Amino acid sequence: MKKLDHIAIAVPDLAVAVAQYRTALGVTISAPQELPEHGVRIVFVKLQNATIELMEPFGDSSPIASFLERNPAGGIHHFCLGDPEFETTLTQVKDSGARALGEPKIGAHGNPVMFLHPKDFQGTLIELEKVSE
Amino acid sequence: MKKLDHIAIAVPDLAVAVAQYRTALGVTISAPQELPEHGVRIVFVKLQNATIELMEPFGDSSPIASFLERNPAGGIHHFCLGDPEFETTLTQVKDSGARALGEPKIGAHGNPVMFLHPKDFQGTLIELEKVSE
Repeated sequence: MKKLDHIAIAVPDLAVAVAQYRTALGVTISAPQELPEHGVRIVFVKLQNATIELMEPFGDSSPIASFLERNPAGGIHHFCLGDPEFETTLTQVKDSGARALGEPKIGAHGNPVMFLHPKDFQGTLIELEKVSE
Repeated sequence: MKKLDHIAIAVPDLAVAVAQYRTALGVTISAPQELPEHGVRIVFVKLQNATIELMEPFGDSSPIASFLERNPAGGIHHFCLGDPEFETTLTQVKDSGARALGEPKIGAHGNPVMFLHPKDFQGTLIELEKVSE
């Protein structure tokens, strides 16, 4: 059964976002990590059952730069389904006529991931991540 | 510790969204429910650890109507933190200078909920829901 692995929120200023989440919500947040190959600087908000990723653009061609142009204050960028039947789901997606964005690649957690086209999922960017159970 | 209770996705046509999620993603989805007091018609996508709510406007003054005007294809409307220390968190939010939207009221699951102002949380609408553990 699929799980809600994380939601990813694009923010214009990571330090401001971290301070706000920590102070107002009292949540535990990791140290920032730079992920040059994904074009983001990121922290993980640890919840009981899932994670919130707060991310700001990193480098010259960040994939979240255009999102922040459209949403200067920030906003929820995508959600990620952890999927033990990753390959089967990819086949279902294709058979349904929905589009994936490119080919599966290795995501920020070291697992194969694939992004699905928001135009085929009601304006929502969905990440599928292969998980073991 | 807080948990990610659900994410809520506003869609222009619930039947289309349900068919797409069911066919392409193979997820289990509840029957639609009309929630007139919340201005939405809603289904629940059941995941292992959390829920995705797909919702379309219901009635004449739906709180998601303006979101769909800005995002006609749909999009992620908010996420909800289930919080065993609901009252403490509300005090922290207030002490941080962040704004809540109105007063706590009873949410779709029968628990007290409060929405936090997106302008104080990087453009993201956050729902806090009181949960028992």
